[in-house]
Amino acid sequence: MNQQQFSSSHTPGLDRFWAVIPAGGVGTRLWPLSRAAAPKFLHDLTGSGQTLIRATYDRLYPLAGEKVLVVTGKAHHEAVCAQLSDVARENFLFEPEPKDSAAAIGLAAAVLAERDPDAIMGSFAADQVIGPDEVFQTAVAEAIATAATNKIVTIGIKPTYPSTGFGYIRQGDKLDVDGAPSAYQVAKFVEKPQADVAKGYIESGNFFWNAGMFVASVKLLLEHLAANEPELHEGVTTIAKAIVSGDSDQVMADIWHDLPKTAIDYAVAEPAAQAGDVAVIPGEFTWDDVGDFAAIARLNPAADESGVTVIGETPRVYADEANGVVVTDTSRVIALIGVEDIVVVDTPDALLVTTTKHAQSVKQAVESIKAHGDDDVL
Amino acid sequence: MNQQQFSSSHTPGLDRFWAVIPAGGVGTRLWPLSRAAAPKFLHDLTGSGQTLIRATYDRLYPLAGEKVLVVTGKAHHEAVCAQLSDVARENFLFEPEPKDSAAAIGLAAAVLAERDPDAIMGSFAADQVIGPDEVFQTAVAEAIATAATNKIVTIGIKPTYPSTGFGYIRQGDKLDVDGAPSAYQVAKFVEKPQADVAKGYIESGNFFWNAGMFVASVKLLLEHLAANEPELHEGVTTIAKAIVSGDSDQVMADIWHDLPKTAIDYAVAEPAAQAGDVAVIPGEFTWDDVGDFAAIARLNPAADESGVTVIGETPRVYADEANGVVVTDTSRVIALIGVEDIVVVDTPDALLVTTTKHAQSVKQAVESIKAHGDDDVL
Repeated sequence: MNQQQFSSSHTPGLDRFWAVIPAGGVGTRLWPLSRAAAPKFLHDLTGSGQTLIRATYDRLYPLAGEKVLVVTGKAHHEAVCAQLSDVARENFLFEPEPKDSAAAIGLAAAVLAERDPDAIMGSFAADQVIGPDEVFQTAVAEAIATAATNKIVTIGIKPTYPSTGFGYIRQGDKLDVDGAPSAYQVAKFVEKPQADVAKGYIESGNFFWNAGMFVASVKLLLEHLAANEPELHEGVTTIAKAIVSGDSDQVMADIWHDLPKTAIDYAVAEPAAQAGDVAVIPGEFTWDDVGDFAAIARLNPAADESGVTVIGETPRVYADEANGVVVTDTSRVIALIGVEDIVVVDTPDALLVTTTKHAQSVKQAVESIKAHGDDDVL
Repeated sequence: MNQQQFSSSHTPGLDRFWAVIPAGGVGTRLWPLSRAAAPKFLHDLTGSGQTLIRATYDRLYPLAGEKVLVVTGKAHHEAVCAQLSDVARENFLFEPEPKDSAAAIGLAAAVLAERDPDAIMGSFAADQVIGPDEVFQTAVAEAIATAATNKIVTIGIKPTYPSTGFGYIRQGDKLDVDGAPSAYQVAKFVEKPQADVAKGYIESGNFFWNAGMFVASVKLLLEHLAANEPELHEGVTTIAKAIVSGDSDQVMADIWHDLPKTAIDYAVAEPAAQAGDVAVIPGEFTWDDVGDFAAIARLNPAADESGVTVIGETPRVYADEANGVVVTDTSRVIALIGVEDIVVVDTPDALLVTTTKHAQSVKQAVESIKAHGDDDVL
């Protein structure tokens, strides 16, 4: 890999660093491409030839090396292991069922605490599109250095438009951290805002999008988890001890199902920010959570003058007075005639036809399909 | 069948009547539903539960009974015989390759001339949608009575809009024919007009659409064919003699390929009209040649308030703020979100997404697909 090298001398804490990759979330707004059996992170949504989870792993490798922990659903066991065949078997944690981010990240923290009590972990979702890698890595290195000063560190995304679909991070005072020249205190996290509020955030220049990236010592992270979600903390600690002792099946079966279902933001980040324990590193890289097919159209400019973006391994697409995006995992011939801003998603058992403007409505369609009992395609 | 009965006492010539059903033409504008291997006439395009060719046969049965002759492509042998299992084997004529309507209808006339020299034949394409059947049958009965006075008789369709896609028939003087109170002389046939000309035709009230329905004694029809296309006449006559003698394979192979390729309109109807030999019966029935998917949308009003017409045996369609038409011969789930006037045609190996406005452009798309070598789906 022709990538920047990182060393402990420039990045305090780097030798303690573990990358955690939570790979959960179906990506309902990307149905029928993304679905229970083949969630978003198992797809190549950028035409790069790589799945999102593999790209996430490769992006973290220059920082973490072999020290990667992957948390994913039991159902995706095989697919995820195939994507990350160079990750050691003991570095996969399989959830029997989805329990939201606090349980997934909490379990990773608890396992690392058993194995390597001084570990600094950084959690990075498996289904985001980021670039260039080097800029991301530099930000993560600063986050690690800041985490080494006993902070929970988030990487804030510079907003490019007043989104009402993301939470925001309000920047506080500048911090003075060795190896992290751009670290700031976090004043607070704020929920997804109304449009006018979002506009104000952008204009102020003091707000970042919250991309859910957290870097912290497992010790500090677990302290906050214990304070805010004691039941969850106890559960993941018990499971982690069983995992490390090599006999976790029964314990997992007994405990996981009843764990509280909550987001790491509520369980750790927001209360920690109130306690003054959270810092932010501004991320100058481009970032997209590929939330819907409009994002896919945005991330994949049309290859030719036809104006149709085509994503698929063996696409056979004909366009006449048409533009938009076609995502196909079949080899069917697809002809588009006289349709504007169209989104066509073609899979062997389900077909979606919509427009980029209606990309967010896919979620409701999936609910309607579920309500009608056609779960076989969800 | 609960249909009107026709008898020779009311309809002179009825006992001489043979129905001829030319079943050719792929229906390119209905791709990918209609295609070389499964042309238009083998589909149920009206949700009636019947293919168009079967509906054509059933519509003619009260007039022709067993006296039906079907001319179709060798390639459709099995499918057509399965649709018309009650038609005797000797009443199918199979073309080795398409040779346009003059050859198909000329061959039928020549075969009937050998078997039944006094026959009056009526030729009715296998892929038109007509109703109510009784009104159609009454018009055909008048056409038969008029044909018995030694006329070539067409059934003119009352135009409902100034179409530039059909040829027109200009009505001449009223005729006085026993059993045909609404028979008129045909002044002339005119080609597909420009829009302003078509408008004038409609306003005059003297023009009908030419639906290609011809009723005539085989003798008169073959006389005109011999006069205008002597080579074609000689060819079909030679083949017909071989068919009737029961040994036509070699003769067909020797002759058919080199027959002139022309339409019955040029080979017979237009010159016969100039000679004063053609009459027209105004057809008061509804008629549609189902030329494109806009026609399918028109012929199949949406079943529910969603505004989406769905045609298919096992459709699973979800619509949200969408209207248009879905034709599917798969059991895939199809979700339409926020698309207006959309046309989705879903087949196992090809998918079309267009709008009713662009329905006529499907033909060019098919040509483009052919040019790119994707003939497997044509």
